[in-house]
Amino acid sequence: GTGADNDLYISQAIVFIEDAIQYRSINHRVDFKSLWLYRWYYSRTCQCILSLTITVILALAFIEKPSSLTVTSDVRHRLPAWNPPCGLTESIELLCFLVFMVDVSVKSYLVGWEEFWKNKWLMAYILTLIVSLTDWIVSLSFFCAENVRIRRILRPFFLLQNSSMMKKTLKSINSTLPEMASVVLLLAVHLSLFTMFAMLLFARTKDGQQDKEWVVYFRNLPESLTSLLVLLTTANNPDVMIPAYSKNRAYSIFFILFTVLGNLFLMNLLTAIIYNQFRGYLLKSVQSSLFRRRLGIRAAFEVLSSLKETPANAQQSYVSVGALLQVLQKVEMDSRCKQGIMGSLKICSCDQLSAAQFQKLFEELDKDAIRQHPPSPEYQSHFMQKMQFAFGHPYFGYLGNVVALANIISICVVLVIDADKQPSERDDFFLGAINCFFILYYLLEMLLKILAMGLKRYLSYPSNRFDGLLTVILLVLEIATFSVYGFPHPGWRPEFMGLLSLWDMVRLVNMFIVFRFLRIIPNMKFMALVVTTLLDLVKNLRAFAGILVVVFYAFAITGIMLFKGAVVPPGNARPKHFFFFFLFQTSFYIKEVVVLYFKEKCDFMALFYGHFQAEIICCIFCLLSVNLICRWAKIYFVAWWLISSVIWVNLFVALLLENFIHKWDRRCHREPVSDIEYQRTVELIDVLEEPTEEELMEKLHQHPHLHLCR
Amino acid sequence: GTGADNDLYISQAIVFIEDAIQYRSINHRVDFKSLWLYRWYYSRTCQCILSLTITVILALAFIEKPSSLTVTSDVRHRLPAWNPPCGLTESIELLCFLVFMVDVSVKSYLVGWEEFWKNKWLMAYILTLIVSLTDWIVSLSFFCAENVRIRRILRPFFLLQNSSMMKKTLKSINSTLPEMASVVLLLAVHLSLFTMFAMLLFARTKDGQQDKEWVVYFRNLPESLTSLLVLLTTANNPDVMIPAYSKNRAYSIFFILFTVLGNLFLMNLLTAIIYNQFRGYLLKSVQSSLFRRRLGIRAAFEVLSSLKETPANAQQSYVSVGALLQVLQKVEMDSRCKQGIMGSLKICSCDQLSAAQFQKLFEELDKDAIRQHPPSPEYQSHFMQKMQFAFGHPYFGYLGNVVALANIISICVVLVIDADKQPSERDDFFLGAINCFFILYYLLEMLLKILAMGLKRYLSYPSNRFDGLLTVILLVLEIATFSVYGFPHPGWRPEFMGLLSLWDMVRLVNMFIVFRFLRIIPNMKFMALVVTTLLDLVKNLRAFAGILVVVFYAFAITGIMLFKGAVVPPGNARPKHFFFFFLFQTSFYIKEVVVLYFKEKCDFMALFYGHFQAEIICCIFCLLSVNLICRWAKIYFVAWWLISSVIWVNLFVALLLENFIHKWDRRCHREPVSDIEYQRTVELIDVLEEPTEEELMEKLHQHPHLHLCR
Repeated sequence: GTGADNDLYISQAIVFIEDAIQYRSINHRVDFKSLWLYRWYYSRTCQCILSLTITVILALAFIEKPSSLTVTSDVRHRLPAWNPPCGLTESIELLCFLVFMVDVSVKSYLVGWEEFWKNKWLMAYILTLIVSLTDWIVSLSFFCAENVRIRRILRPFFLLQNSSMMKKTLKSINSTLPEMASVVLLLAVHLSLFTMFAMLLFARTKDGQQDKEWVVYFRNLPESLTSLLVLLTTANNPDVMIPAYSKNRAYSIFFILFTVLGNLFLMNLLTAIIYNQFRGYLLKSVQSSLFRRRLGIRAAFEVLSSLKETPANAQQSYVSVGALLQVLQKVEMDSRCKQGIMGSLKICSCDQLSAAQFQKLFEELDKDAIRQHPPSPEYQSHFMQKMQFAFGHPYFGYLGNVVALANIISICVVLVIDADKQPSERDDFFLGAINCFFILYYLLEMLLKILAMGLKRYLSYPSNRFDGLLTVILLVLEIATFSVYGFPHPGWRPEFMGLLSLWDMVRLVNMFIVFRFLRIIPNMKFMALVVTTLLDLVKNLRAFAGILVVVFYAFAITGIMLFKGAVVPPGNARPKHFFFFFLFQTSFYIKEVVVLYFKEKCDFMALFYGHFQAEIICCIFCLLSVNLICRWAKIYFVAWWLISSVIWVNLFVALLLENFIHKWDRRCHREPVSDIEYQRTVELIDVLEEPTEEELMEKLHQHPHLHLCR
Repeated sequence: GTGADNDLYISQAIVFIEDAIQYRSINHRVDFKSLWLYRWYYSRTCQCILSLTITVILALAFIEKPSSLTVTSDVRHRLPAWNPPCGLTESIELLCFLVFMVDVSVKSYLVGWEEFWKNKWLMAYILTLIVSLTDWIVSLSFFCAENVRIRRILRPFFLLQNSSMMKKTLKSINSTLPEMASVVLLLAVHLSLFTMFAMLLFARTKDGQQDKEWVVYFRNLPESLTSLLVLLTTANNPDVMIPAYSKNRAYSIFFILFTVLGNLFLMNLLTAIIYNQFRGYLLKSVQSSLFRRRLGIRAAFEVLSSLKETPANAQQSYVSVGALLQVLQKVEMDSRCKQGIMGSLKICSCDQLSAAQFQKLFEELDKDAIRQHPPSPEYQSHFMQKMQFAFGHPYFGYLGNVVALANIISICVVLVIDADKQPSERDDFFLGAINCFFILYYLLEMLLKILAMGLKRYLSYPSNRFDGLLTVILLVLEIATFSVYGFPHPGWRPEFMGLLSLWDMVRLVNMFIVFRFLRIIPNMKFMALVVTTLLDLVKNLRAFAGILVVVFYAFAITGIMLFKGAVVPPGNARPKHFFFFFLFQTSFYIKEVVVLYFKEKCDFMALFYGHFQAEIICCIFCLLSVNLICRWAKIYFVAWWLISSVIWVNLFVALLLENFIHKWDRRCHREPVSDIEYQRTVELIDVLEEPTEEELMEKLHQHPHLHLCR
């Protein structure tokens, strides 16, 4: 009947508007039950459960069998890590798989059968689940004693497929790959030609004294390749040329040529290529989000316009305000936006809305909260008004900055004076008294500011919130100190009492004071620009970081599997593993590890001498002891270096350049308005192209499930 | 008289056109004598003498007293360097100063008195000369025994002031300085806040076992600063955090935070800022060159138009073709351009030229030689025609590439097989025979190509010239080998004979073969693009390299002066110096040196153990032995690191990005034409703006010496 039809149209409109708000695709089933399922699937609870499941399955690696999650990394001192019994982690895993199976079935159902076959991500999702479950069954049938666990390497895929941003980023990285491959090929040619040259240049001579270079770095082809590859990371830079250089200075020409060509030219060429590819990336991504939003709104308009019995020949379709209000009440959206749209509807005071009007109403969504700070309180007394003027003035804030700087300097002076004193000689009186004074000033500043601005206005500034929070923390710490250790007096160095020693308390207070000093940032123009750019960057970087985590996880698990037997710490027969080793190998760090690894090939003593304690080095040391593993390790390390240090860092630089230059350009055009905070979408709105009516309608007519009458 | 006036006008026109050709400013005196002086000053001979003088005065440092120009850098084995007697280098210096004095007086005279006072470069030139001469007199009066020689540090200024490109580049670097300073300030704030945090975090504890981190890296303020500064160069990356990390894994958060903020964000921010500033640099520089050219041509037109007695009221001024021909005959310019202009004049067949026509004639200058390869010879015989088709075909070239690759692979295989053999066991027969065969093939290829293309056409391709030259060299080497050692046969390993041993001859041949393999570059599209970009870059980089040389020289000389007494090699009392030490400290290298220096503070044994031989390490070792010097050395090294590694490398990256993205953009628009070689000016011509008539005339009326009638 028409009533049921109307209900369906209303539900469709609600879902389409929600799609528009969340920038989701509208290509899903639109019948009544599917819409209910769709809203349920994208409800906060369901998405939370899904995210939680992904977190849990990824975090399993921390407690699974070859785990090393302990406080100290020193293999000699630490307690054995907790070893979960067989079946515990496996049953958690099974629960996660069940959630994923529900997820994939709902998703597949919602996109429809035809779309399903075109969607490679869904197919891969199902395949991954099948492989994982098979592996899980194999694992259980061996009572958790099997060595190879493929499903662990596949885990990060669940993270990847759940984020549309990451999928998009991966796609654009994928389109850069051919050019990156060309540069990597060029690097390979560079490397191999120079390797041949080096082998001819530093050949073995009849005089054993003269061929130090040959003995150490160019003994055979793999060794020469390794030496020059490490030189490409600039890590063995002076060492590799010193034997040759001390024979004849002219040999340095070879190394300089190699470094300049490889490092300065080819490596930076990679930056240039990646930057060139990513130049429009930010804009394009926001543009496609905008298109999705407009499309969702337009789809809602179209279904709502079918609601009324308009004459079939009418030139334009209209939507009644009543229907829109009905829809709006059921849509889940930011209450501010909802009120804004309702308000506009009232002002408009028309009965019917055209497509353009409808679209215009929802432009409220693009605008972010233009934050109006609440007004200061109005005092009657003349004295209070003067106080308000004095302590509400920016100069009072500057005075606070100066006092904070003075505090920092005093801490610094005390640190320099106390640097060489024994802990027992130290007198905490001076620092205690000074800090007490400063913290009282901070408290006074906070209270006076609240007096001048009123609590609401005070809290509406982020810098004040930061300031106030730290002041309160400092106050609490100080009161706790005094209550335990009494007031400071000369020779104030009581023994250990309570949870923390006095010395630790003072250190903690000092750290917070140093941290509080960051409040100066908004007062310095250039710093503020840099910090906002960085914050923007972090926002845009989430997808990249996610992909890095995915790669990282896969590498770490592969490492554990590859080098499992090889990694036995000396004097401690328990097998160790690579997870943490990799967890803090930032791209910079890996360079050093590769070098260490390549340089000290199986030279145990040298390794022992320098860095006996650290687990990391232990791992490498152990790796070295198994020669068979060596070749695999080399390939593994080089691959990781290429991905983390070369490609990822360059991607990061490209993104930073893009963001910064974009921001910089705009800064020149527009005056910075400190009181009003815009958001990214609004900032870009003047650069973006609005999609045309034709594009929207063409896309709507391609919708696999929605069949518009006209 | 009018005749003398006419002669003056003709001379002026000649000089102005020459200025336009060389992109020089036209703001110089224009009377008869000055013009003669001007042409003499800018004649090839004079400019050569000037360049030679600058080279000589800069090269003096290689033979002056604390010199270490020897083949080996090993202080134990080498002979003492030649020590020139007092007065020898000083008299060469005086000669150079005399040339510079003539240079500065001619330059000052030519720009005129008023302009002289505005020209800061000329003033600085004179000041530098006065200081240098004073220092020279002091030096001689001490019989060359004085310690401080200021004039040596000032020397690179002579290089700087002689190049207009370098002056321009310096200006644009100068305009970037405020923003660079902001980032460096930000880095300093970052560093100092984290230093305070580190000192509070890694404080001395009562338990001596627990504070390894404090003992090694954070003992006091300067030490902590140094540790974190070196961490900023990523050089002590794993080492610095290992003691803390092995105590508690959570400490690594501090180091990761520091590295990510400092290295990933702030350092790359510097790249972004410098790139942002340099984005338009290339275009702007070519644009201003174009303006100078148009201005010179226009000035020539204006003076030539004064030549004729035109009616004062004439709307347009004209230049007679006869006068122009007279001028053209005396102008020194590329003969191809001259013929082109003459040819256009004949075709035009008009008596008078308007300003636009005049300007258009000289557009021939902007066009570079569009190289037409000479035609292939036409053979009568059918057989010869077939031969020509076969060997002129690109596939024959590809076959040559394949053969070259096969040769490379065969050499590689022999190298791998021979890697572990003793020199006495080695049999050179196999490699000798193979190379003999391949070189014969190369010869045949060259001859057949010449046959097919004709010698002229063959030589007109740069790749063929490269190919042919290397083939001839290989042939000569091979013939020399056979004439000395006979033809190869099994067991062919004769003893040392003649200039080089057979083994060295074979190695030399192999190196040339590897080098010859580079002929494949033009055949690979992406490689060709990269190589042309790099060549372009090198062209644009000359000014930057010049500035680097200037900074480098000043730093090296300062280093020699600062650390003179401190640098005494062990077991050898002769004072050494820093010149060569710096000459091959590329920006990458310095990082390592700084680290080594900071890490191994005065730990002599560790230094001795690892790198006994090299002079470089000796220098550092010696530096370390004098504690007073240490602080200076630290500041000196940090300054050098900032300039060479941070700022210069970032400038380079910015320039590379600029060049590459420019080239990349154009590649998409235009098909690459392999047969015709354009030059940069031509490539940019469609992007550049032609200066308007008004701009040119305004600039001409501002000329300090030329007073135009109208």
